[in-house]
Amino acid sequence: MRLWSSYSSIDLEEVAGSSLVLQPIGSIEQHGPHLPLVTDSLIAQEVALQAIRETPTASILLPIISYGLSSEHLHASGTISLSPTTLLAVLDDLGASLARAGVEKLVFLNGHGGNSALLRVASRELRLRYGLMTFLVHPHLPVDQVSVVSNDREGGFAIHGGVAETSMMLYLKPDLVHIDRLERSIPDWLSRYSKIGFGGPVTFGWTAADLSSNGVIGDPTSASPEAGKRSFEAGVSGVVAALEEIQAFQFPQY
Amino acid sequence: MRLWSSYSSIDLEEVAGSSLVLQPIGSIEQHGPHLPLVTDSLIAQEVALQAIRETPTASILLPIISYGLSSEHLHASGTISLSPTTLLAVLDDLGASLARAGVEKLVFLNGHGGNSALLRVASRELRLRYGLMTFLVHPHLPVDQVSVVSNDREGGFAIHGGVAETSMMLYLKPDLVHIDRLERSIPDWLSRYSKIGFGGPVTFGWTAADLSSNGVIGDPTSASPEAGKRSFEAGVSGVVAALEEIQAFQFPQY
Amino acid sequence: MRLWSSYSSIDLEEVAGSSLVLQPIGSIEQHGPHLPLVTDSLIAQEVALQAIRETPTASILLPIISYGLSSEHLHASGTISLSPTTLLAVLDDLGASLARAGVEKLVFLNGHGGNSALLRVASRELRLRYGLMTFLVHPHLPVDQVSVVSNDREGGFAIHGGVAETSMMLYLKPDLVHIDRLERSIPDWLSRYSKIGFGGPVTFGWTAADLSSNGVIGDPTSASPEAGKRSFEAGVSGVVAALEEIQAFQFPQY
Amino acid sequence: MRLWSSYSSIDLEEVAGSSLVLQPIGSIEQHGPHLPLVTDSLIAQEVALQAIRETPTASILLPIISYGLSSEHLHASGTISLSPTTLLAVLDDLGASLARAGVEKLVFLNGHGGNSALLRVASRELRLRYGLMTFLVHPHLPVDQVSVVSNDREGGFAIHGGVAETSMMLYLKPDLVHIDRLERSIPDWLSRYSKIGFGGPVTFGWTAADLSSNGVIGDPTSASPEAGKRSFEAGVSGVVAALEEIQAFQFPQY
Amino acid sequence: MRLWSSYSSIDLEEVAGSSLVLQPIGSIEQHGPHLPLVTDSLIAQEVALQAIRETPTASILLPIISYGLSSEHLHASGTISLSPTTLLAVLDDLGASLARAGVEKLVFLNGHGGNSALLRVASRELRLRYGLMTFLVHPHLPVDQVSVVSNDREGGFAIHGGVAETSMMLYLKPDLVHIDRLERSIPDWLSRYSKIGFGGPVTFGWTAADLSSNGVIGDPTSASPEAGKRSFEAGVSGVVAALEEIQAFQFPQY
Amino acid sequence: MRLWSSYSSIDLEEVAGSSLVLQPIGSIEQHGPHLPLVTDSLIAQEVALQAIRETPTASILLPIISYGLSSEHLHASGTISLSPTTLLAVLDDLGASLARAGVEKLVFLNGHGGNSALLRVASRELRLRYGLMTFLVHPHLPVDQVSVVSNDREGGFAIHGGVAETSMMLYLKPDLVHIDRLERSIPDWLSRYSKIGFGGPVTFGWTAADLSSNGVIGDPTSASPEAGKRSFEAGVSGVVAALEEIQAFQFPQY
Repeated sequence: MRLWSSYSSIDLEEVAGSSLVLQPIGSIEQHGPHLPLVTDSLIAQEVALQAIRETPTASILLPIISYGLSSEHLHASGTISLSPTTLLAVLDDLGASLARAGVEKLVFLNGHGGNSALLRVASRELRLRYGLMTFLVHPHLPVDQVSVVSNDREGGFAIHGGVAETSMMLYLKPDLVHIDRLERSIPDWLSRYSKIGFGGPVTFGWTAADLSSNGVIGDPTSASPEAGKRSFEAGVSGVVAALEEIQAFQFPQY
Repeated sequence: MRLWSSYSSIDLEEVAGSSLVLQPIGSIEQHGPHLPLVTDSLIAQEVALQAIRETPTASILLPIISYGLSSEHLHASGTISLSPTTLLAVLDDLGASLARAGVEKLVFLNGHGGNSALLRVASRELRLRYGLMTFLVHPHLPVDQVSVVSNDREGGFAIHGGVAETSMMLYLKPDLVHIDRLERSIPDWLSRYSKIGFGGPVTFGWTAADLSSNGVIGDPTSASPEAGKRSFEAGVSGVVAALEEIQAFQFPQY
Repeated sequence: MRLWSSYSSIDLEEVAGSSLVLQPIGSIEQHGPHLPLVTDSLIAQEVALQAIRETPTASILLPIISYGLSSEHLHASGTISLSPTTLLAVLDDLGASLARAGVEKLVFLNGHGGNSALLRVASRELRLRYGLMTFLVHPHLPVDQVSVVSNDREGGFAIHGGVAETSMMLYLKPDLVHIDRLERSIPDWLSRYSKIGFGGPVTFGWTAADLSSNGVIGDPTSASPEAGKRSFEAGVSGVVAALEEIQAFQFPQY
Repeated sequence: MRLWSSYSSIDLEEVAGSSLVLQPIGSIEQHGPHLPLVTDSLIAQEVALQAIRETPTASILLPIISYGLSSEHLHASGTISLSPTTLLAVLDDLGASLARAGVEKLVFLNGHGGNSALLRVASRELRLRYGLMTFLVHPHLPVDQVSVVSNDREGGFAIHGGVAETSMMLYLKPDLVHIDRLERSIPDWLSRYSKIGFGGPVTFGWTAADLSSNGVIGDPTSASPEAGKRSFEAGVSGVVAALEEIQAFQFPQY
Repeated sequence: MRLWSSYSSIDLEEVAGSSLVLQPIGSIEQHGPHLPLVTDSLIAQEVALQAIRETPTASILLPIISYGLSSEHLHASGTISLSPTTLLAVLDDLGASLARAGVEKLVFLNGHGGNSALLRVASRELRLRYGLMTFLVHPHLPVDQVSVVSNDREGGFAIHGGVAETSMMLYLKPDLVHIDRLERSIPDWLSRYSKIGFGGPVTFGWTAADLSSNGVIGDPTSASPEAGKRSFEAGVSGVVAALEEIQAFQFPQY
Repeated sequence: MRLWSSYSSIDLEEVAGSSLVLQPIGSIEQHGPHLPLVTDSLIAQEVALQAIRETPTASILLPIISYGLSSEHLHASGTISLSPTTLLAVLDDLGASLARAGVEKLVFLNGHGGNSALLRVASRELRLRYGLMTFLVHPHLPVDQVSVVSNDREGGFAIHGGVAETSMMLYLKPDLVHIDRLERSIPDWLSRYSKIGFGGPVTFGWTAADLSSNGVIGDPTSASPEAGKRSFEAGVSGVVAALEEIQAFQFPQY
């Protein structure tokens, strides 16, 4: 396993330029009564580790950024959130450090939907300021970033603490799941709106307190470790395929 | 027409709370050899004006923010871009000012894809810091923000200066279009990648110089004022429908 | 009319270096019960447009910056103000963008007295950081920036919403003036002080709420469109003459 | 002499609210070949000390802020300048500290023209954020801040290192003046412009290097200690009169 | 083991106030040719985990902050450093989040000497702004923060990659140590100075490039896993004892 | 006496590179009922002046920075404190200005313990960003920065307003000392803790209000001018010796 952290400086220098560098980022934030605060970070980290194992490309894994942008969960105990400007500054410092080391390709592997928009902003800035080629990958694309909503029983509301996340946690860390606290909490009323919504053309500035009384936005009641295994493996496959494509990716010369 | 700017302070005070406040935002950035720098701002502004005229809801239009986040076009002459932190600060000051005036609902009408991610970040922050209900609307959803790619002849690459924008400009301001300079410039090579792409699961930090030699990312050669009229009217209809939905929108009490 | 926004990037490139670039800036702020929030921006914009038309020099007009520094009116509904650091950041980003385009001379045409001091700070910084030659022009010099006070009937207190602004608005946009709400509101008590005052040697940090109960600082009751026309034309003439001088202006070589 | 610094905390607490607090601010910057870097700070400090001695009002003197905003002299050895945002932050922290101590009136006594615009911005912000009443006083009003130009032999160009400053230094600290290096250096070419200029309606972003080969902008050759004494005493009288007026100053209740 | 990350939000809420919260922080930075970039983070993390296991007090462990302040190693490949202002912002956001959760006592367990001064600054600010009681603990006190220098064979120069760190790594992660690259690199010339030095009264702003040709500041040649075990256990004991004292610690009421 | 401020720019240019530049920094903060707010600044300044007089090395003295980082005394009237980010910005601007003047060695002479950690951070950053060699010297090392605690009757608690500071003030400025208000105020309860403490391995984020009811942390009752003279002279000797060593100091070439 190629971990940035495990290299000595002089060995890292040898491989930095030719490797694809993977930065996992998650969150420490409320995930309803049944899931631990670490959920997003843990899934990002486990997917990253497994993807690095499976990928034939030369990837190096950076240590995870655990504290992300979780403004929408700040009202709930345990959430630790950086502000947007702080996280932009962290990512800018990171980009400068990586470019100095000779890195050419940086991939953010993001486990928390609330980080996605800011990571898109940062991806472009790092390209511009440091010449890095930057990419943004998700184990599972956040529901609010796709326009076609899957027709599962959560009706496109599996934003947070729903069946997918809960199942993966049951597969990866069952002891951290309070199986007795699974509770459906879906903002059904959102379906009254055809344009405003997670995958719709009109996005909106919501906090979890706007959408849920217990912090869940989804329906974890049918979660299972088996579904979690499938979901996890699908996430890994997707990331592995993405890494291979990224490894081959080049901008043409104009 | 209800323009924020045209109100006196004491009259504005009467209507601020019950109105939906619309903030158009665009860009001043290169749009290829054939389109003017103002393209995004002009379309946002024209759509906003027409939508305000057509909408039965109580909307008030703010003066447009012309300078947006155009890092991806900074290499080209004429582009005027704020940095992400500057634009976040502008939007934060705006939110504070609106909340002080008693505004409850703020809608960003965004004409430039490069602003979208940052506006999503700001939408949430303004909700959190000032209690505003915030919404983000586009005349046409940026291609890199939808996962289903239209199968028009631009093959999903109509990001910038392509047939849609050019047609709308031919309809709205034909004298600003250099009809003799229409040139197809599509990063066909991107189709070699199944994951990396504008509407794909892997986004990437590109600049226009990475994707095009003349600043266009699309194929404007078949643009026409008729198509522009249809496109513009579709944009207006979409925004009007969105505004009506937003007017009715409420978060439930938990 | 040469508008920056109307140029395509490659055409702008041709003219940027040899042109004088004009940046109008105003405010959206309370202007008493009778004038609209847009007053400063509208006057700046109209003077700029007319000046560009009349001036034989090669000037290019940038889109107006509508939101300025209006801390002194923040207490009143409708005022939208950037903080000093935000506005400095906007102007710095602007300067960087213009210098990148090859611009050599930048003229701020400022319609709001509250922006003036900050624009003086920024003018010097942009000279220093980007090598731009920068200039600051007003349609009418703010009363608090001249030491000789005109002996009109407002006694040197025509700071805000007084006869000059009201007259110009009656000339330019009579439908936005509430003619039935003209009310004299002059801080006569200030004449008790011989040093502290708008044009005096001792300036002070006032807000409109310190000086007025209705937001006006002046006496608009004798305003007329005729006086407005004269005032507007004088403003335009002054700006045209300034632009011609600026066009010819060069620093010597030492 | 009432010096803030000399009070113990509990004694300061007694007088803070009823006193007028005076903050001298100067610069450390090039002043031509004949004057020391401290010129502005020294004059501000000496005027402040003498004014405090002479004024019957209850004034307290803060320790001088030596490092100001000297961007226009950064090219010359010895200049130590804060950036505009740094100095704004210093003044904001100062305002917060003073308000916490119960201060109600703060007077900036400024010896450096390059600080003036920024101090005007800060004066208003401190009024707004901390409720302080703020005032800005100069020993001698900077030439570029008055519109009527004195018709002395420097023709209105006595900006920096000219007869007034040199004379005062000859009076206050003759040993710091290099009397053998007095050299006229006046940007006579500026008189070709009727609008652009120090006291004219068009201000411009100049550095000392734009206007002078030796850092002087003025004509010190006729400087004398006698003239310096008169100038100094006039400055003190002006400040004393200002302090008395400020002591009496109150905003009315509306 | 009580890990913040493993709690659900509602369970965390129960214990946050009565627990002592431990934030490990390290660095990713060059550690000579023989040690991995992760050295500081790994030691901090391992000590923290073991201390939590051994301590009878109610401690909760936060996820480690891997990226610290490593300006002094920025010249070397692999170092990832936040700037001082970025790290201050991260710690401020952290403090706000913890205080919101009801935390009363926060302990930084710091594995990197370069973080110490900044953590002291932050400790006080978090006390002031959020009312947190804050503490700073090191597995081993950085040599440059004690005035009595141990008389081991490194002569007080065991700053970085020396016998202590290398031994601990040989004990904790021998496979990450390049045993064939142990090389003494001690700035013996520093002993020529009696005041300037790591533990002396005069501190200085050094980078690793100022003190070493290979990034090591110390003598790892005699490192052994046995010494590492002793060192590690001593570090754990020290931290356990500190945590117990901190658990009991209270400020008196005055 | 070589004062930076007294040089003309061209004379400073001659000596900047070969001189050691000394920046005194203090605080304006509460020092108990008996000492003036200026205590730290005055001691730093007096020691600096005397050291410059006595030192044979080529040192130049900068004007003192009076406002430091005094967060721990913000609750008390009269304290004027910069925030950490403001002070870092001031020091960064200072470093840039000095480097531009050709300075190679900068020595902070710090009279306030609360500045020390931040000055250590800044010392390294200025080395890194501007290539300056930077040093940090104290007249007397702050008690919380040494691990060996003197066994005087204050038991290692002479942090603030105790016998040393009071004695020095009695020697330097007896008229500023309220001799009738000397009161012992020592946080004896701290001795219950063996690890947490000023010189102990566990530092903590305290404010003066946490440790004292009257702002004193120490026992000034036995202070005397004679002890103050000895203390002052010891401080000067220490600084002179430090300056001589710094003058000779060089980093080797690797």
